[in-house]
This record gives sequence, C-alpha cells and structure tokens, in this order.
Amino acid sequence: MPERLNITPPLTVADLSESQLLERIFPRLHYGQEHNPSLILGPGDDAAIVAARDGRTVLSIDTQVTDQDFRLEWNNGYRTTGYDVGWKAAAQNLSDINAMGARATSMVVSLTMPPETRVAWVEDFADGLSAGIRELGAHDCAVAGGDLGRGRELAVSVAILGTLDGRAAVLRSGARPGDTVALAGTVGHAAAGLALLESATPVESLTREQRALLDLQCRPRPPLAAGPRARDSGATAMMDISDGLVRDGARMASASRAVLNLDPAALKELAVPLVPAADLLGADPMSWVLGGGEDHGLLATFPPDLQLPAGFTAIGSVEAPAPTDSTGVKIAGRPADTVGWDHFAD
Amino acid sequence: MPERLNITPPLTVADLSESQLLERIFPRLHYGQEHNPSLILGPGDDAAIVAARDGRTVLSIDTQVTDQDFRLEWNNGYRTTGYDVGWKAAAQNLSDINAMGARATSMVVSLTMPPETRVAWVEDFADGLSAGIRELGAHDCAVAGGDLGRGRELAVSVAILGTLDGRAAVLRSGARPGDTVALAGTVGHAAAGLALLESATPVESLTREQRALLDLQCRPRPPLAAGPRARDSGATAMMDISDGLVRDGARMASASRAVLNLDPAALKELAVPLVPAADLLGADPMSWVLGGGEDHGLLATFPPDLQLPAGFTAIGSVEAPAPTDSTGVKIAGRPADTVGWDHFAD
Repeated sequence: MPERLNITPPLTVADLSESQLLERIFPRLHYGQEHNPSLILGPGDDAAIVAARDGRTVLSIDTQVTDQDFRLEWNNGYRTTGYDVGWKAAAQNLSDINAMGARATSMVVSLTMPPETRVAWVEDFADGLSAGIRELGAHDCAVAGGDLGRGRELAVSVAILGTLDGRAAVLRSGARPGDTVALAGTVGHAAAGLALLESATPVESLTREQRALLDLQCRPRPPLAAGPRARDSGATAMMDISDGLVRDGARMASASRAVLNLDPAALKELAVPLVPAADLLGADPMSWVLGGGEDHGLLATFPPDLQLPAGFTAIGSVEAPAPTDSTGVKIAGRPADTVGWDHFAD
Repeated sequence: MPERLNITPPLTVADLSESQLLERIFPRLHYGQEHNPSLILGPGDDAAIVAARDGRTVLSIDTQVTDQDFRLEWNNGYRTTGYDVGWKAAAQNLSDINAMGARATSMVVSLTMPPETRVAWVEDFADGLSAGIRELGAHDCAVAGGDLGRGRELAVSVAILGTLDGRAAVLRSGARPGDTVALAGTVGHAAAGLALLESATPVESLTREQRALLDLQCRPRPPLAAGPRARDSGATAMMDISDGLVRDGARMASASRAVLNLDPAALKELAVPLVPAADLLGADPMSWVLGGGEDHGLLATFPPDLQLPAGFTAIGSVEAPAPTDSTGVKIAGRPADTVGWDHFAD
C-alpha cells in the first residue's frame, strides 16, 4: 500500500485573524482573576490593571529573538519547541523580579511571528509560558495581556511586574567588605547544555545527566523562592547571573565599589555536575562555571555572621579594594580575568 | 576641485558594546528621579521600581516592527527617522494608558536592531521617545529601563505603566443606551498621512496642510489630557481608536452589548481637514474618517445630560440593539459596514 499523503497543510497564523488566534491562546494562559489575586482587570481592554498593594511595583522587560537568543534548529538536531520559547521567556523575566528580592504579580507578552508560523507552535508557546510560571512557583503571576504581530523573524518581548510585599529591594550596590558571597541555583549548566546543542552528538545518545543540562538551556529553572528569602534574611546585595559569574560578579563589585573574592574549592564543587558533559565534549567545566549565563542562579552577599538562608551556598567573601586597585572579581586573591580556567584543572 | 570623499564610515551599533551604547542613550532619556516623581529606582539594576500610590498599576505592551508598522523609506521618498520611531512608540503606548482614563508613570523599552544600525539613529530614537513623552504632556512618565538586542529587523517593544489616582478605570464595556458618543483628538489624519507617504507626490511639493497629515502619521499626537478628564467627568466607556472608528467602535459596542449610532453630519465635519489630501490623491476623505487608525483619538460615551468635557465632540448616541439585532456601529441607523463611503459624498 502506498503511504497516504497528508494533503491538509498545517494551519498557520496567516490563516487566522488576531482575535481568532487570541481565542486559541487565552484559555491556555490561566489568566482568570480567580487564579490570580493580583489581577484586577485582565485582557480585553486597552490595558490591564494589576494590584500593587504596598504602593510600588517592580518592573522589567526582556526580548528574545530567533538566532540571537535561541535557534529553532540546533546543530545536534534538537528543535526548539514553542513550549521551550514560552518557558524561557517566563523564566528569564521571573528571574529579574527574583533578583530584586521580589515576587512576580503579572506579565504582558508581545509575540512577533512570521506568517508561516504554525498555530500549533503558538499554542505550544502559550502552554510553555503558562507551565514555566506555574512550575517555577510564581503562583501569583497573571498573564495580564499582550499583543500579537507579524515580522520576518520570531521574537517575544515580555514585561513583568512584581511586588516587594512592603520590604526594601536588594540592589547590586550593597555588598560590604566582610560579607559572604553566596549562590542559589546553578551556574554553568545552561552553558554546558548550549555546548551540547552546538555539538555533533545527537540528543538520543546523551546520558540522562547530559540531557538534563540540555533541558536546562532550553527551559531554565531560576530559584524563585530564594530571592524573597534572601531579602528577608538580610542579603546586602543581589543579582541574577545571566551573563556569567565573572561578568555579572564584576557588575556587582563595581556597583558596590568592592572586590568579590571567590573560593576555588567552592568553584570546583560547582563544576562537578558538569563533568559528564565536559568529558563528552573535551571541554573544561570550569569555563562554564565562570563564564556561563542563562541558568539564572542568584548571586548574593550576606553579613558575615549570618547563617545563609536555605538554598544558598557560600562561594567567597567581599573585600575592600586595595587603594590602588580596581573593583572586580578575584579567585583566591588573583584577578579572575587573569586566571586561566586550567588553573583549576586537577 | 574634486569633491572630498568622506572616508570615515558612520559608527554602527556593531562597533559598540551594549554598555557603551546605553551610555549614549541614557542621558537623552531624562530618566533622573528628580524629574520623575514616580521613579523609585531607575535603570542599572535587574529591574526598576515605580510608585503605584493607590495600590494599583495600569499595564500595557506594544511592539512596532519595520515594514509591518512603519517603512524605513516610503514610496514618496520620505525616510522614517529614529526620532519618528521613538516618538511613535511613546505615543502608541501613552495612548493605551490614556484610554483607561489613567496617567502614565513609567515605561520600559526593548530595542532590537540589525548590527548595521547607525548609532546616530539610536540616539535620534532616544530623543524622539523622550520628546514624545514630554511634548504630549506625560510629565510624570519616566523611562525606567530597558534592553538592547540584535535581530535581523528593527523592532521596538514598549511596556507602559500608569496610575488611576485612586479613581475607577473607564472600560470599553460601560456604554448604556441613551449615552452620548463622543470623540477627542482626530480620526483619519494619520490614514491620510499614510496615503500621502504611499503616493508618488514628493514631500517637498505638499502643502502645509498635507504635510501636517504626513507628520501625524509619523508622530501621532494622542490627546493625553482628555482620558483622565473623561474619567473625572463620568465617562461610561472609553477606548483609543487605533484600528479605525468603525472597527474599534464595533469592539466597544460588542463589549457594551449596544449599538453606537453615529451622526452623518458630525462625521462630515471630521472629514473637512482631510479634503486637501483627498483632492490631491483622488481619495474619499470619509473612508479615512471611518477606517483610519493611528491618530489615537479617544472614543468615549457619556451620560445623556452631561456637558461633554473640554476636547470632546458629540458624534452620535448609544442605542439598545433591537431584539433580533446584533451589536455594532450604525450611521444614521444603517449598519456602518453596509454603508458605502460614497453615501457621504455631497
């Protein structure tokens, strides 16, 4: 028997009006007021209305563009799903709110799509966005609205709001000499996952540990409970690691006019879960620990005698810069950018 | 003497790091806390913090993409400036806040650019964004932050926050039979301007009146004082006209389960300023009045015996739909979508 031909082309966004497409997306976003105490007025008017009970709102925006922030098809054969893009958009933005010590209350989403984008892809995007919010624990975060538009390349912009619940925000600028430098979540896992996606090793032949790294690149898991917990515990400075421990640490050091001196033994611990991927690719796991972003772990500093809140691990201490010295990140007292990664090799 | 050759290529965004580019943009945005009482924490951390004094915030997002929402070069030779794109991004978003009866407190801006984009264009964009906020009268609106990224096509997403100053929002759904339908600002001017841009008539040969229409397409002027004024005067429903009077009016009618019956004499008045452009292009000015969006005028309804607030003109009345009839827009009692534009010709 000859194979049957599928003669129905898949439905694309060009086949539907914006309102028809929105009708397919909204039910997937769980935006109903009953689920989201922060949402006073949801989608359907010119703007949404969101609660800001302590008289302030925390605000950020972030855009992902195809082939800049993710590839639709990777070298190793993995295809980025709509679910992945939706999840990652949620995770990146939720992390910016977490990094202030705040909790997300709402987001609005602007999705730009080429006309040939399949409707099933957009539905999958909405499912991933919704699942990211829910599974990462942002239970009070409503999808308050958004817009859909056309463009030559797929892009998603998310703006997110959060609440500090009456407390002070934790800024990058508060690290003081003597403070403990600590980390919540992971570093380097997403970078290892990216290296696997860009490698020639097919997905099917990855071990479970290697596959977990790839999955974290596609669907990051920022530690959302840790931000408000650090704030309540008295964290002096905090930010999320999106561009790498050394680059982001240098930003915190600069804002705080301080030096973050990291402990090589702690960094080595962070590299342990990366070894199975590094061995496969012949890579140095320490380069992922020091340079890898996108896990959206939290870098924070705490007063010296404080017991670190759950989820945080000490990785160094804050020092005053020497009079002739600049701020920055050091490893065992040596400037991190002059320390070759192989310095850490056994 | 031979003409001198300019051998220095213009600086592009590919020549600068994100932080170098931000250093050129920030001074142009007047984001300083001293100028913006709503801004509690400005750019530089993972997120901004904005005041929401009455415990709520109004929230919207909007994206513009090259060749979808504007052309960089038009048929008539006009080149869209960075200033135009920045102004339009500000105006469109400010209008969404205005349409709820709210005042803008802050916006965050995400700009996606091809690497060959000139730095001068980006500076011009920042100037236009800033000028739009200031000249349209949104004096408490701070640019609270944003991000810059690369893409194949130029795109700008703006998310905007606003305050209702303790009052109730004006929704699309509140129009009641007997209410007066009124308009603030203009309709059809931006559509006439678009027709001029797409025509073969060079900019230089336009009259002052025609040029003003083109300018309004590039730099819309939503009537920002009118939204809060309508709210305080007791408007029952409101929205901005971004897709045309008939299409947007039908949305208000549907949300309110009502009919908006428009007055042909009032519509004719709205067409008068469009006649010089219509004559040049052989177009029907009434098609711009009924179908043109992007002026971002306000469509609102008011209780029947109320004196309309300053800036609003009556253009019709709200009626209950007949039992077998659907909601929608009528003109002198006839469904607007069955009324040919030439019905209005003298």
